[in-house]
Amino acid sequence: MAREPATMKWWGWGDESVEFDMASRPALWEYAREVFQFERDPEVRRPVELDSIELPIARVNPAFECDIRRTLAPDQIADDKLSRLTHAYGKSCRDMWRMRRGVVPWAPDRVIFPHQHDEVRAILDLARLHSVHVIPFGGGSNVAGCLEPIVQDERMVVSLDMRRMDRLLRLDPESGVARVEAGALGPRFEEQLNLEGFTAGHFPDSFLYSTVGGWVATRSAGMQSDRYGKIEDMVVSIRMATPAGDIETRTVPRASNGIDVNHLCIGSEGTLGVITEVTLRVHRIPDKKTTRAYLFRNFETGIAAMLACQRENTAPVMMRLNDPNKTALSARFPKARPGSKRFLARALGKYVTGVRRWTPDEICLLLAGFEGSGRQHTRQRRAAESIFKRFGAIGVGAGPGRSFNDGKYDFPYLRDYLFERDILCDVSETATVWSNLMPLYRAVISAMQTAFDAEKTHGWIGCHVSHSYHPGASLYFTFAYVAAQDHQMEQFLRIKKTSLDAFLANGGSLSHHHAVGYEHMPWLESDVSEAGVAAMRALKNGLDPENIMNPGRLTGGFGFERWQTAGLPGK
Amino acid sequence: MAREPATMKWWGWGDESVEFDMASRPALWEYAREVFQFERDPEVRRPVELDSIELPIARVNPAFECDIRRTLAPDQIADDKLSRLTHAYGKSCRDMWRMRRGVVPWAPDRVIFPHQHDEVRAILDLARLHSVHVIPFGGGSNVAGCLEPIVQDERMVVSLDMRRMDRLLRLDPESGVARVEAGALGPRFEEQLNLEGFTAGHFPDSFLYSTVGGWVATRSAGMQSDRYGKIEDMVVSIRMATPAGDIETRTVPRASNGIDVNHLCIGSEGTLGVITEVTLRVHRIPDKKTTRAYLFRNFETGIAAMLACQRENTAPVMMRLNDPNKTALSARFPKARPGSKRFLARALGKYVTGVRRWTPDEICLLLAGFEGSGRQHTRQRRAAESIFKRFGAIGVGAGPGRSFNDGKYDFPYLRDYLFERDILCDVSETATVWSNLMPLYRAVISAMQTAFDAEKTHGWIGCHVSHSYHPGASLYFTFAYVAAQDHQMEQFLRIKKTSLDAFLANGGSLSHHHAVGYEHMPWLESDVSEAGVAAMRALKNGLDPENIMNPGRLTGGFGFERWQTAGLPGK
Repeated sequence: MAREPATMKWWGWGDESVEFDMASRPALWEYAREVFQFERDPEVRRPVELDSIELPIARVNPAFECDIRRTLAPDQIADDKLSRLTHAYGKSCRDMWRMRRGVVPWAPDRVIFPHQHDEVRAILDLARLHSVHVIPFGGGSNVAGCLEPIVQDERMVVSLDMRRMDRLLRLDPESGVARVEAGALGPRFEEQLNLEGFTAGHFPDSFLYSTVGGWVATRSAGMQSDRYGKIEDMVVSIRMATPAGDIETRTVPRASNGIDVNHLCIGSEGTLGVITEVTLRVHRIPDKKTTRAYLFRNFETGIAAMLACQRENTAPVMMRLNDPNKTALSARFPKARPGSKRFLARALGKYVTGVRRWTPDEICLLLAGFEGSGRQHTRQRRAAESIFKRFGAIGVGAGPGRSFNDGKYDFPYLRDYLFERDILCDVSETATVWSNLMPLYRAVISAMQTAFDAEKTHGWIGCHVSHSYHPGASLYFTFAYVAAQDHQMEQFLRIKKTSLDAFLANGGSLSHHHAVGYEHMPWLESDVSEAGVAAMRALKNGLDPENIMNPGRLTGGFGFERWQTAGLPGK
Repeated sequence: MAREPATMKWWGWGDESVEFDMASRPALWEYAREVFQFERDPEVRRPVELDSIELPIARVNPAFECDIRRTLAPDQIADDKLSRLTHAYGKSCRDMWRMRRGVVPWAPDRVIFPHQHDEVRAILDLARLHSVHVIPFGGGSNVAGCLEPIVQDERMVVSLDMRRMDRLLRLDPESGVARVEAGALGPRFEEQLNLEGFTAGHFPDSFLYSTVGGWVATRSAGMQSDRYGKIEDMVVSIRMATPAGDIETRTVPRASNGIDVNHLCIGSEGTLGVITEVTLRVHRIPDKKTTRAYLFRNFETGIAAMLACQRENTAPVMMRLNDPNKTALSARFPKARPGSKRFLARALGKYVTGVRRWTPDEICLLLAGFEGSGRQHTRQRRAAESIFKRFGAIGVGAGPGRSFNDGKYDFPYLRDYLFERDILCDVSETATVWSNLMPLYRAVISAMQTAFDAEKTHGWIGCHVSHSYHPGASLYFTFAYVAAQDHQMEQFLRIKKTSLDAFLANGGSLSHHHAVGYEHMPWLESDVSEAGVAAMRALKNGLDPENIMNPGRLTGGFGFERWQTAGLPGK
């Protein structure tokens, strides 16, 4: 059977033919050397060979197998090693670490590829009849452990790969809404919309390898959310096959019809059913798009400027403010071009530090995106720049924006590159109200530095603020450190736990757009209260009483103890 | 016991001392004469005397009574006739019709007034322990039958009047969020915010007599929703006491933490628990506010202009487009002022019909509200007016806007005035996508005309479009007709059903902001699908397994047959 479109390499992020191009980024490697204080370049640890991996023998429920083969065409059912392997995990740190070492104690028993809603309906009916688990699979890009049923029983598990359901079903250009099958990957969805002159404006970092249904099931956020909203703001109506029947809502702008049924499906992470079709808000492709960069004296000042943009309703479509460490990283990330100088080096010259007397290691870079008709674009940019100026910003042109756009989908490849050198790298993201952004930021940075020290390792942590809303914004932390030789995962989980503990102890949300999966589950009750989780459990019990769907998620009572050992060797 | 603040007259809308002032509106009565083709002024039928009403004897659960009197102060528990009567119904047509005739087959057995969250928690625990029903009561302004437990069992029923829980608990001016107790009536909430320089910007027609918790439980919409959103867009976090425990969410702008728990509480209509505290987005009071009026050639053209405002992101804070009938009504609604001329008469002069050659009975009035700093206000108005101009609109100044603002909370009193004269009057509101606004509008108008004809009565129906969103807007229909002498409610329900059937058959939602109650329940499955209702039922079973809360709502399986007779004499 042919591989499905855009299936990622089994041992890492992205296309098999692509590796992170460090050779063209000497300044980046130089920065890494400084940060991690290498005495010599670390050794490269390649992933194990595919042949060396032994998957558990597939469990087969004969009655289900018989019925499902009667229902679907042979090429809709796969049980080959590569299919099972690429559907076993997402792309979390734990996943990547295990995969590279060939630690695959679990894989789905079958991978099934439905072509339309009615087939999903039939599959769920058979799964219920024969007591088989079903785990919906979009692009497999999740970083929260959304696919692997850590809480296992003896039942057969099917991975339901949605990517053949990728059609744009209807576009209503007047109303600006489009109906799309949930399995469409980002590029496929945009390509179909673009042909009609439209865009959804949803570009998460995972865009190339994530699906519409995955976005909705995990409450994804795209880079331009300031203009277009998070995915939950875009959903107008939904079709979700559940074991208890098909949920279908109406394509209306708003309603008062009891509890909003769309919102029972959004964020359900595959636990209640399979999202098969979604109607989303879409927009005419803007005539003009640019991304420009500005330097601020420090992080506080940049945040104050973002808030002012929000309050004066002059927000660009994107604002992304890097803290000093992330600013330093951004300056070194672009590929070196012959004759080009690094923008920060240039900007940090005489003027900034001499005339303005800014402290170099406090300076922060803000990227702002503007979109619209020529006139709207100009108006938007002028309004934002007049606010930035009030906060003393220095414009540094379109160069950093171009670099950002060139490299925006490359970043996850860097993680694999570092992994190969035993530098573990991950992200933790949260959101809070404006008045709490700096206190939360400082608390997390301080807790993480303490954690690195406790582990006696050289660690790096940077942060950017993005996704502005009326009440607040998101803080997105990236961290990396030189991993211990032994007990690497135990060490990693101690450090990761530090970031999440700090979020919950300091008024942050568990996650802004990365879902719960099992990686965040031990904190769910602290975030939404015990009765909040009980409400989710009530939905689960009512719509999926036999626990067919994505077992052990959201309401699985998954505590720290299990989290610390889940899926790891010898546990 | 003293009456609670802002309790409405038991037999009609609003303050006891206020009656609709028809004497100052001779043009309005003249219009009614034309429309309803009176041969002579109809007789006035006053409501029955309070003394003539006999309430059913209060059922008392002695164990609950004993425990609750130990828990609360004596003035927190009422069982007098007026308290029971004013908590029996909302203000729907069916409610008003029955109340005026003294048809009160049901009233709560006790009315309880909690002072804070912990007391609500204790009351629910006792209610669960002793198997007593609890119906949360805000301002009693609902028009969908949200309070009366049509599906009755033998248990005692407590009406939980939330209006003593009316404090602003916290304001975070930087983040623009305010925590308020759910029982605050609109004016009380705004007054506390205004003292700090803030406003919530939520002004539903029921503003004077509805509470924050009622808004959230029913998914209310305010007149300025184009700028400030519907209430569900404003909620940042929530506290809801449920029989299964207290749900509490975090005050964060957005999250990805599974199914959005806020949205399990919003719209739950008292079926899952009692909303006790809410954190809402709030805004600095704008320096300048105006409402201006514009005439459009016809309804389609007005809608096209509203859509253009939406697409070009230059929407005023409010746009309210009347259809020709509603335009005619608006022209006659303001009180006559000595020497003043009616704006429409003036506008309809030579220029509009002579020079522009518009057809008088197609002309539509649009009211647009602008708010902000002086500069923002000017920019907003200029941008909108340049779009209106493109669609051929004629500005008719601030007069109609002033009249609208003067009279905006008077409209419900008119219903009582007409009721007294056996003219039944009601509203039905829905929402749909832009491309379907005109088809849905035409289908509803045509169905209702057919219904009036079938009833052999003179009927009037008007409509306005308001609440613009990216994908569509709301259609708000007002209708009135000369009621038959016999079987008035049966006739009314046939006509009312016509409007709802037309919504559901033509792509509208069941309601845009009036809730489900029991008045809309027979259509709920058509709106959100059988499995959608099953999902709500799952929540109910999980959080309130003993069916303590607001029995029979949302998931009560309330069909047409019961709807047609519910609460009516002899049924």
